[in-house]
Amino acid sequence: MKRIKNMNKSFEKKGLTKKSENISDWYHDVILRAELAEYSDVKGCMIIRPNGYAIWEKTQAVLDAWFKEYDVKNVYFPIFVPMELFEKEKKHVEGFAPELAVVTHAGGEKLAEPLAIRPTSETVITQKFADWIQSHRDLPMKLNQWCNVVRWEKRTYPFLRTSEFLWQEGHTVHKDKDDAMAMVMQALEWYKKYYEEVLAISPYVGLKSENEKFAGADLTYSIELVMPDGKALQAATSHYLGQNFAKGFDVEYLDETGKKQYVHQTSWGLSTRAIGGLILTHGDDSGVVLPPEIAFAQVVIIPINNKDETVQQKALDAANDLAKDLKKHKVRVIVDADYKSSLGTKINNWELKGVPLRLELGAKELEAQEVQAVRRDNFEKSKLKLASATESVVAMLETIQSDLYKKSEALKRSLTVEADGIQDFKRILNEQKAFIRVPWCEDPACEDRVKAETKATSRVFELDRIDENQDYKCFACGKKAHRKWLFAQSY
Amino acid sequence: MKRIKNMNKSFEKKGLTKKSENISDWYHDVILRAELAEYSDVKGCMIIRPNGYAIWEKTQAVLDAWFKEYDVKNVYFPIFVPMELFEKEKKHVEGFAPELAVVTHAGGEKLAEPLAIRPTSETVITQKFADWIQSHRDLPMKLNQWCNVVRWEKRTYPFLRTSEFLWQEGHTVHKDKDDAMAMVMQALEWYKKYYEEVLAISPYVGLKSENEKFAGADLTYSIELVMPDGKALQAATSHYLGQNFAKGFDVEYLDETGKKQYVHQTSWGLSTRAIGGLILTHGDDSGVVLPPEIAFAQVVIIPINNKDETVQQKALDAANDLAKDLKKHKVRVIVDADYKSSLGTKINNWELKGVPLRLELGAKELEAQEVQAVRRDNFEKSKLKLASATESVVAMLETIQSDLYKKSEALKRSLTVEADGIQDFKRILNEQKAFIRVPWCEDPACEDRVKAETKATSRVFELDRIDENQDYKCFACGKKAHRKWLFAQSY
Repeated sequence: MKRIKNMNKSFEKKGLTKKSENISDWYHDVILRAELAEYSDVKGCMIIRPNGYAIWEKTQAVLDAWFKEYDVKNVYFPIFVPMELFEKEKKHVEGFAPELAVVTHAGGEKLAEPLAIRPTSETVITQKFADWIQSHRDLPMKLNQWCNVVRWEKRTYPFLRTSEFLWQEGHTVHKDKDDAMAMVMQALEWYKKYYEEVLAISPYVGLKSENEKFAGADLTYSIELVMPDGKALQAATSHYLGQNFAKGFDVEYLDETGKKQYVHQTSWGLSTRAIGGLILTHGDDSGVVLPPEIAFAQVVIIPINNKDETVQQKALDAANDLAKDLKKHKVRVIVDADYKSSLGTKINNWELKGVPLRLELGAKELEAQEVQAVRRDNFEKSKLKLASATESVVAMLETIQSDLYKKSEALKRSLTVEADGIQDFKRILNEQKAFIRVPWCEDPACEDRVKAETKATSRVFELDRIDENQDYKCFACGKKAHRKWLFAQSY
Repeated sequence: MKRIKNMNKSFEKKGLTKKSENISDWYHDVILRAELAEYSDVKGCMIIRPNGYAIWEKTQAVLDAWFKEYDVKNVYFPIFVPMELFEKEKKHVEGFAPELAVVTHAGGEKLAEPLAIRPTSETVITQKFADWIQSHRDLPMKLNQWCNVVRWEKRTYPFLRTSEFLWQEGHTVHKDKDDAMAMVMQALEWYKKYYEEVLAISPYVGLKSENEKFAGADLTYSIELVMPDGKALQAATSHYLGQNFAKGFDVEYLDETGKKQYVHQTSWGLSTRAIGGLILTHGDDSGVVLPPEIAFAQVVIIPINNKDETVQQKALDAANDLAKDLKKHKVRVIVDADYKSSLGTKINNWELKGVPLRLELGAKELEAQEVQAVRRDNFEKSKLKLASATESVVAMLETIQSDLYKKSEALKRSLTVEADGIQDFKRILNEQKAFIRVPWCEDPACEDRVKAETKATSRVFELDRIDENQDYKCFACGKKAHRKWLFAQSY
């Protein structure tokens, strides 16, 4: 127990690591200092603190509203999965068995059958689909749950890979492949929109390879983020499960002609890993940088203390008035009137926590009927007229959001390269990690060899590429390849 | 597996059990038929279906907004609790050890130390309070989490007692008892308000006895509902933990004078059990009755089908127009234009699911520019002018909400009696279960005897009673008693 406590505290002895010098140390430092999360005594688990959990709540609100518009219904299935259920889909159990946490005792007794803690809920949910679906009139059925899942991991990082994590898992059944694929693409579209418009991150969106797809899926589509160190973060997935689970669990319906058919199924999920992607993408040497759309507070107003109490009170009044007006315009705002801390301490604190815009208001500003604005993303300072401050702030928040997105897009572009053969591929990875776009044969054995030699795996075939069915040679094995894939080392 | 599937389906063979004839069978029937929940193959766990989960989502929205106004911050702690942590508070481990589910294997290996699945999170959260709290300036710290917990139960009922359930657990630390008690009372006030104003249930609110208080608490306050069969449902609790956990986990702070002090702590929770209380309280022989405030849909409009397609279309148009206007006024409304089902089937379905108000619109109503309204709670029919229908509906929903509350209050009153000694107490319980208000000595051994002889336990000493410090004799043992308590058998 002591070890962990010391680990959580050790960062206080030194300054914040520079992101450019050691991104991994920086990441751990920032998470602890900005009070986003802490390590737990339980291996690989984390404690999500209010600043981190607020990001998740906002994520839930955004996605859940989209799901509901599309008539997806929220449900809750038990966390326990009888081991025998896993056995019903062969690839699924093979994929998840190594990561299961298992309850063997409960209520003071040994259980007759051990219970796995859900790593994902395809099995328990498909089993109920078999009860609920009789006819084509019951289809489609679209369910989702917000819950915790457990996958026992050897190496863990807060948010990015933890033994327990929070997520949403959508599970739907459809009458045919077309209908199921429309759902798969809709979920992917929601995730893309969330990353682009809420987190201000430009992702790659595409199809996963045979090796990298979900255990039990026919097709897996994924959102891949390019991290500043050139590594990939798989940031959400959407699966076409085909009839694999339907056959294992006998999920059949009577079609319009009275014939029995297996349903076509999908599942799709996004987890608290998104928070890790957000921190890594936008953070800097001063701490977290939150895009306004996701920020728990979009603006912090600091009324400057003054020896003259009348002046100090006037600054506080002006700050409160402005905050009131901003709130009216749906801006999330905090007034930091903690006069016991120095201005420097307060500035450091809000920069660390990533509040997008800081407004300072002292005697000088009052005199000029202005307020000083400082952008968190680029530290740019400007004076705003108090009379029109709300308008200016709203506009600045929009600019910050779009500038962060542009920066993320530029980073993605700068860290994506093409390679000419496996030697060039290896040379690139040795020089600087990156996403490498190469023609590839799509043979799982070829991917295994590339992975063994370079630690890189295929990330996706990008959905918006138009170069399918070209006459390429595989960058790794020289066999025929008809399209280019992105490869990278991944988190 | 077959057994459970049959259990879930068996009800279809017969009609809905009458509530007055067998409330337990009725309860199970209604939950399955109204698609609120289903049994899972895992002992004591349930599947919460969309109609049931919608009640929980509304509960979350209401309570969470109140918590946030009071500056309670949401967090997430791991589901796993190392066994050694439980040992730190003696009464706590004694109370919960018999109900723990334990993970012994994970990631394909036996764990060095078994992990309990949280039955509640006082231990893991208090441990972190010790890290986070140094000075009086860090106090109060008010945290809450929405999560699943597991308590392995021998006898289970859907919603009322399940091995896994969903809840919120608030955990706060304060500088002194006064401050902590204010929090305990605030939480209790939220729960009371939720039951009264949202679920339209009149509860008893009071203090628990030594025997019935939370394992590890100094004081437990509780919300107790009087079920229609006269049994009690403990429906939310708020605990003053004193310094019990603080001492076990060394949670100390430096007070204003620089002296080390242990913090004073609270915890409080409300779970999916509330949904069970709601169903039992308001339901009738036709199914669920949802108070408008909690209903997933407050109004269902049924346009009546007609051989004349023009008339049918006009009715549908009028229904859609009315729905649109109702939505503008924040009324949750569904238009059921499924012409393939008969009107009778549709009426049965919406009555079963408990939608508070049904509007029917056919040729006759169109002619008269009216709509027929039928209240779910008392089946009262009335005609509303189409031109002012929205206004009428909003008023009727308010009336339904308040009538349901009044009915619940009357039920509570009619099922609360006073007893003159233990023989009278036993006679009452033999005739009809009820809440019995009796002077009681508050001796745990006395309560043990009463429980052994009657299955009844003390529920609460009511907070709004003014008869403390009276000179009574205990109804059971004849010893001195200074106030009256409510006793009942409980779920």
